[in-house]
Amino acid sequence: MTINLKDYIATIQNYPEDGIVFRDVNPLIGSGIAYHQAIDEIVEFARELKPDIIAGPEARGFIVGSPLAYTLGLGFVPARKYGKLPREAVTASYELEYGTSELQMHTDAIKPGQRVLIVDDLLATGGTISATMELVRKLGGEVVGTAFFIELKELHGREKIMAEKDIPLLALMEY
Amino acid sequence: MTINLKDYIATIQNYPEDGIVFRDVNPLIGSGIAYHQAIDEIVEFARELKPDIIAGPEARGFIVGSPLAYTLGLGFVPARKYGKLPREAVTASYELEYGTSELQMHTDAIKPGQRVLIVDDLLATGGTISATMELVRKLGGEVVGTAFFIELKELHGREKIMAEKDIPLLALMEY
Repeated sequence: MTINLKDYIATIQNYPEDGIVFRDVNPLIGSGIAYHQAIDEIVEFARELKPDIIAGPEARGFIVGSPLAYTLGLGFVPARKYGKLPREAVTASYELEYGTSELQMHTDAIKPGQRVLIVDDLLATGGTISATMELVRKLGGEVVGTAFFIELKELHGREKIMAEKDIPLLALMEY
Repeated sequence: MTINLKDYIATIQNYPEDGIVFRDVNPLIGSGIAYHQAIDEIVEFARELKPDIIAGPEARGFIVGSPLAYTLGLGFVPARKYGKLPREAVTASYELEYGTSELQMHTDAIKPGQRVLIVDDLLATGGTISATMELVRKLGGEVVGTAFFIELKELHGREKIMAEKDIPLLALMEY
C-alpha cells in the first residue's frame, strides 16, 4: 500500500514572511512509513543512474542523501556551509534574498570522473542545488541526476538546473 | 570482512585552533564500505533498545541518524539550530567555548512516552547531545540510548550524558 506523501507535508502560510507559503517536510521525515516510502522512491530512480556517490547540501539534503547512499552501498558527500570543513576545500556561492551564501566540499570528496547524484528536500529557485552542482564539477565529477521530495514549480528551479545540460530530475511532490 | 573504521578518520593537528586535534569523519561518510559498516554497527545496537524514533542534532547528526531511522523503518527527528523550524518548537541551550547556542524541535516531533535513540557523529564534551536529550524529555520522550561514531574520552561527555541516569551508549571508535 502506498500512502500520499502530501499528507505528511505541513503548510505554513506567510512564513518566513508575508505572502510566502512554506512547505515543511518534518512530518514526513518524522513518520517511519512516509520517510521509508519517500527514500525508496528515490532509491529506485537512483539505481537507473548508476551513481558512484551521493551528494547533498547542508542541512536537510543530508536527511535525503544519507539513507540513499547507505542503501545503495555508496558514500555520501555533504556540501557544507562555509567554514565547516577542516581541510582544503572548493567553494561555490549562491544568491539569497539578501546577499549571498557559500557551500564547500573537501577537494578529495569526489574523484574526477565519478558519477554523482545530488539530492535535497526541496527545489525552489535552484540556487542551493546549482551551487552543489558547481562544487561537483569543480572536482571533476559528473552530475548524473538530481532528486527532491518537493518541487515548487513556480520558482523554475528545474530550468536553472537544466540551463547547462539536460539531467534526469525526480520530484516526489509538486506544488 | 570488517574494516578498521579509524583508517577512514582524517586527523588534523591544531584545528580549529592551536593545541586541538580535530577528528574528521568525512572520509568515513564518503566511503561506501566504511559508511555502511558504521551504520550497520549502530543498527545492531539500536535493535536491542527498541526505539520508536531516532533523533540527532544538526548537522552531522543527520548523517548518522537518518540512515539508521530509514533502516529500522522509523521516523527521524532533527534537532535544528535556532530559528530553522517554521512551527511551534521547544528550545534547549548549550555552552560553546564562547557564549551559548540553541537547538530546537517542533512540539509535535515526539509523542509522550516514545522511546528515543539519539545519535551524533562525535561525542566531545557532551553539550550538544545533552541539549538534544533535554528537548526529547521536554516533549515527554524517553531517551533509551545514545550512539556515536567517535568518543573523545578525555572530554568526559559520557559522564555528562549519564549525570542524570545511566543510559546505553555506543561509540564505534575512541580517541
